Amino acid sequence: MRARGFVLWFTGLSGAGKSTLASRVAPILRERGLQVEILDGDAVRENLSKGLSFSKADRDVNVRRIAFVANLLARNGVCAITAAISPYRAIREECRRRSEAPFVEVFVDAPLSVTEARDVKGLYKQARAGEIPHFTGVTDPYEPPLDPEIVVRTGEESLEASVAHIIAALEARGLVPA
Amino acid sequence: MRARGFVLWFTGLSGAGKSTLASRVAPILRERGLQVEILDGDAVRENLSKGLSFSKADRDVNVRRIAFVANLLARNGVCAITAAISPYRAIREECRRRSEAPFVEVFVDAPLSVTEARDVKGLYKQARAGEIPHFTGVTDPYEPPLDPEIVVRTGEESLEASVAHIIAALEARGLVPA
Repeated sequence: MRARGFVLWFTGLSGAGKSTLASRVAPILRERGLQVEILDGDAVRENLSKGLSFSKADRDVNVRRIAFVANLLARNGVCAITAAISPYRAIREECRRRSEAPFVEVFVDAPLSVTEARDVKGLYKQARAGEIPHFTGVTDPYEPPLDPEIVVRTGEESLEASVAHIIAALEARGLVPA
Repeated sequence: MRARGFVLWFTGLSGAGKSTLASRVAPILRERGLQVEILDGDAVRENLSKGLSFSKADRDVNVRRIAFVANLLARNGVCAITAAISPYRAIREECRRRSEAPFVEVFVDAPLSVTEARDVKGLYKQARAGEIPHFTGVTDPYEPPLDPEIVVRTGEESLEASVAHIIAALEARGLVPA
């Protein structure tokens, strides 16, 4: 019997911890017997969306492509984890509506003050200096989910606590064997 | 136990029968217990490559995207069937090299005289009238595979014979249970 696939859709500011969480959750799900694929924002831009800008229109195209691929994987029994900023609520909701497998939205809720203070990739500094146009949280909007399945507050709780919270929520939904 | 995924890569002229063969092979593989996903040329252009032209550079980008998604599926145990013209040999060979799962190339070998006489979508007529630039076989090259795993001659043999040939070849490779 093949496991039921689903989409685990991380959304949040740059530096909130989406990719880190994805890379920590994935091996746990694999240990439980699931097939898992991570669609990282950067990897998808390289392979599916090269040449697209960070304008709203191009971001929407990029996020729709991620959702298209995530859906292909999920409807074939794979847990597809996406880890792109995906700042616009309407497009995320569209991705949810189009999903043929359960769609679990994880809001990685770290405030801008935290993500900017961390500035792991130095991008906020560049954005403040005007070197990166359309930077989410600085010169571009971020629209938080209104009713996400899971919220993790990575500015307040440990990485381990966030991971445990996600796994428990997936178990509670019957998507991951306990 | 999850089945082993693989990529079943159809290549051939427009109208050679790639999509028809894919749609006939897929249900047979599903009956044998495989997860199967068809990545049709038109569907991929709509969802992953909108805005790309049919220039060599853009075709290459499109084919690489198909291969990227096919590989994600195949490495997660899915049989990913691609049905795009994919006219350039070097790009097909690149897709093969990058594949993390078995890559089975099916040359749908119908001569131009046959595909143009059929002209199912009326595209050859438009291409001859100069209404479609870069049309494979008319104003753009098609480079046949030199050593494909499977060749089907859809201009000479019945659809049923081509399908049976493909299934038998996949069985012989241990990719499909008999």
